[in-house]
Amino acid sequence: MNAPTPLRPSPATIEALTGELTKRYGNRVVTSLAVRQQHAHTTTWLANQPPDIVVLPTTTEEVSEIVRLAAAHRVPLIPFGTGSSLEGHLNAPFGGVSVDTSLMKRLVAVHSEDLDCVVEPGITRKELNEQLRDTGLFFPIDPGADASIGGMVSTRASGTNAVRYGTMRDNVLALTVVTASGEIVRTGSRARKSSAGYDLTRLFVGSEGTLGIITEVTLKLHGIPEAISGGTCSFPSVKDACDAVIATIQSALPVARIELLDEVQVRGVNVYSKLALPETPLLLFEFHGTDAGVREQAERFGEIAAEFGGSGFAFATQAEERSRLWQARHDVYWASLGLRPGAKGVASDVCVPISRLAECLAETKRDIEESGLIAPIAGHVGDGNFHVMPLVMLDDPDEVSRAEDFMHRLVERAIAMEGTCTGEHGVGQGKMKYLAAEHGDAALDLMRTLKRAVDPMNLMNPGKIVA
Amino acid sequence: MNAPTPLRPSPATIEALTGELTKRYGNRVVTSLAVRQQHAHTTTWLANQPPDIVVLPTTTEEVSEIVRLAAAHRVPLIPFGTGSSLEGHLNAPFGGVSVDTSLMKRLVAVHSEDLDCVVEPGITRKELNEQLRDTGLFFPIDPGADASIGGMVSTRASGTNAVRYGTMRDNVLALTVVTASGEIVRTGSRARKSSAGYDLTRLFVGSEGTLGIITEVTLKLHGIPEAISGGTCSFPSVKDACDAVIATIQSALPVARIELLDEVQVRGVNVYSKLALPETPLLLFEFHGTDAGVREQAERFGEIAAEFGGSGFAFATQAEERSRLWQARHDVYWASLGLRPGAKGVASDVCVPISRLAECLAETKRDIEESGLIAPIAGHVGDGNFHVMPLVMLDDPDEVSRAEDFMHRLVERAIAMEGTCTGEHGVGQGKMKYLAAEHGDAALDLMRTLKRAVDPMNLMNPGKIVA
Repeated sequence: MNAPTPLRPSPATIEALTGELTKRYGNRVVTSLAVRQQHAHTTTWLANQPPDIVVLPTTTEEVSEIVRLAAAHRVPLIPFGTGSSLEGHLNAPFGGVSVDTSLMKRLVAVHSEDLDCVVEPGITRKELNEQLRDTGLFFPIDPGADASIGGMVSTRASGTNAVRYGTMRDNVLALTVVTASGEIVRTGSRARKSSAGYDLTRLFVGSEGTLGIITEVTLKLHGIPEAISGGTCSFPSVKDACDAVIATIQSALPVARIELLDEVQVRGVNVYSKLALPETPLLLFEFHGTDAGVREQAERFGEIAAEFGGSGFAFATQAEERSRLWQARHDVYWASLGLRPGAKGVASDVCVPISRLAECLAETKRDIEESGLIAPIAGHVGDGNFHVMPLVMLDDPDEVSRAEDFMHRLVERAIAMEGTCTGEHGVGQGKMKYLAAEHGDAALDLMRTLKRAVDPMNLMNPGKIVA
Repeated sequence: MNAPTPLRPSPATIEALTGELTKRYGNRVVTSLAVRQQHAHTTTWLANQPPDIVVLPTTTEEVSEIVRLAAAHRVPLIPFGTGSSLEGHLNAPFGGVSVDTSLMKRLVAVHSEDLDCVVEPGITRKELNEQLRDTGLFFPIDPGADASIGGMVSTRASGTNAVRYGTMRDNVLALTVVTASGEIVRTGSRARKSSAGYDLTRLFVGSEGTLGIITEVTLKLHGIPEAISGGTCSFPSVKDACDAVIATIQSALPVARIELLDEVQVRGVNVYSKLALPETPLLLFEFHGTDAGVREQAERFGEIAAEFGGSGFAFATQAEERSRLWQARHDVYWASLGLRPGAKGVASDVCVPISRLAECLAETKRDIEESGLIAPIAGHVGDGNFHVMPLVMLDDPDEVSRAEDFMHRLVERAIAMEGTCTGEHGVGQGKMKYLAAEHGDAALDLMRTLKRAVDPMNLMNPGKIVA
């Protein structure tokens, strides 16, 4: 049994709700089409479905009030951070209110001794790290985009540092959440661990706004490592690169980042970021620790990589060099678009057990070739997670159809290899159709049971995940 | 609104269910009082409340069948591992069937390249590590007792290694669970991370059998470190020891274990384990890494500890020495009992932000003294988690009452310091009364909503956590 499908509110309902909101929040309520479109999906080829109203609260209490007002009219609510999500999370297929958290970006508290901080959801990860600069601490989760912390919680984001520091699942200590009834729930304490009941924090991490709106986040922080050592290394094949990564992780080398770019992606990066990397499969790696520690780790890694045909080691010993390299990694989205001017990038990510990664990548590359697509690959290979971005001319229906078919096969392949349809982007609208294949009917029914219990009217970001 | 309180089944109902179970499972169904008592709470001063029937399934399908049979009669179900839980999790206040998983202890699969394994819930952590011995991998979570993996999942167990390797929350990749309806749910894939919907795995980790019965566990494993270095170090005061730990963690030294024993606990350990440790607050520490790495880390730690008055460094370089030391740490329960022959140990644990730990410990020690109790303290101090075990003569009502009052104040103190009423033992029956103070009414209502949605008849381990 599904949660009820909400009706699209009538124009009269929206007008009434707009009036009530405006009375309270004045010009923090916006209904112009341009702003509403910006608050829906804008990043990939999924259609833009704007909300009816955008409102910018400044406190948890205001969010609670907004939820109660909207719920009284049975109007859906869609939380909004920076708009960088990739699977249609922000779309409003049933209309509703976009709750834009961009005015809620305070760093509420830093507890240096406890290695944690409390933030409002609208602060972005770069803003947070900028404000933490003098503390000797940092927040490591880095999905590339300068996403909001609230959005990163909602999609269970991760990125390049996850192999060492974990994902958002591991780095959120507690949340304040406004649920569908407008109740304000605090999901945990500041203790590093607890066995005191159900894990409400993890219930909301990754729930994409479908169970409530996050209004405060207590995050783990980490000490800035004394030394960082990193660089690049080339491999004859993707399989060799994967095998080197497996051996590295098995030998308990605490690699902080280990990223794979395939030769297509390297070509794009070279052009876009003006680098001269060898255009073969490439690993970017980084170690965090003491001076002696990272030197030893990098040496060990070099020995392991060499066993698997790794060559052309280039160490980036200066912070500037490293920044340039990682900026290039983060710019793969733009670099990829440069490979085919006029094309739209169709982002997707899957994740498989690392033992299956080489095989999954090889089959995927063969599939790209047979489909006649251009689709660079970049991956958080230490986690078995990779991104494929077909570059598609949207005015060519045949190419669009080939790309769609390819994306289906990509996900089916990952699931067949005991993996997941998304390692970090989330379900949104784009991956809903794969959840049954991945989880099975019993698990999916349980997810629906949870959704129905927490949000019986299905007003919290409807049309996403399972309802 | 609470989940319904189950009625205690009538003798006729139990007789009928016993017959149905015996027809299927023969002598794997036991109803003798001695066995039933062994399957209820036996470890602390909470009263023993035996189940009506003990059944030993061998497969997930049998567990599903048992759940369906019991549910048809509205008879509660209580999963059982090794019986080492401390808060009354195994008691059957409404009678019911103890589902003993001790025949389900296969190591189903080891995936060395992926650093994971699949186990049945009845295998204990020591049995698992024994069987992993030739793989170069190990399962680090170590709560002291040789608990079953299923039980450790259920209580969100942790222990001495958690500061480096995390708790059960962080080390379970996926579960197979039989829910209240007898459905078999698979909560995740073998991918290291996923953003594909609600985190069903974390819903069950720490749920103490109240949402379903765990029948298979996919665990993360870790490479056995090339080198281990550890030892002990004495401090003038508990506060100095805590400050040394805070400085260690802030400086990003990757300590694998860091344990505090107060002077009372050290005295008990010396007697029980025939050691000659200085009877002042003591830290036990351990580093995992490469030869050079652990040497450097131990040196750094020595410098930091010395700043806070640490002295009497004793390094245990040989594996045998280290084993002896950690065995002594694990034997604190028995060592403590030795401090007061005839007394019952009343175990409890709380966890606070590490910045509050010294203050929390100082107030607790003052409270112990003012209460006229003998109560050694041992703590996973890197996490802010510590154990206090008053040694109580149960035939002295005044002393029992003083110990109870002390335990209340201990929990209230931890919660007031932004901590939790239990860091690793779980809620069971013993800590139910503190959940409202810790979580607040809105969060507790949400936990009850989840319980009611997943187990509407309240048959899964009723009388624990919130229902």
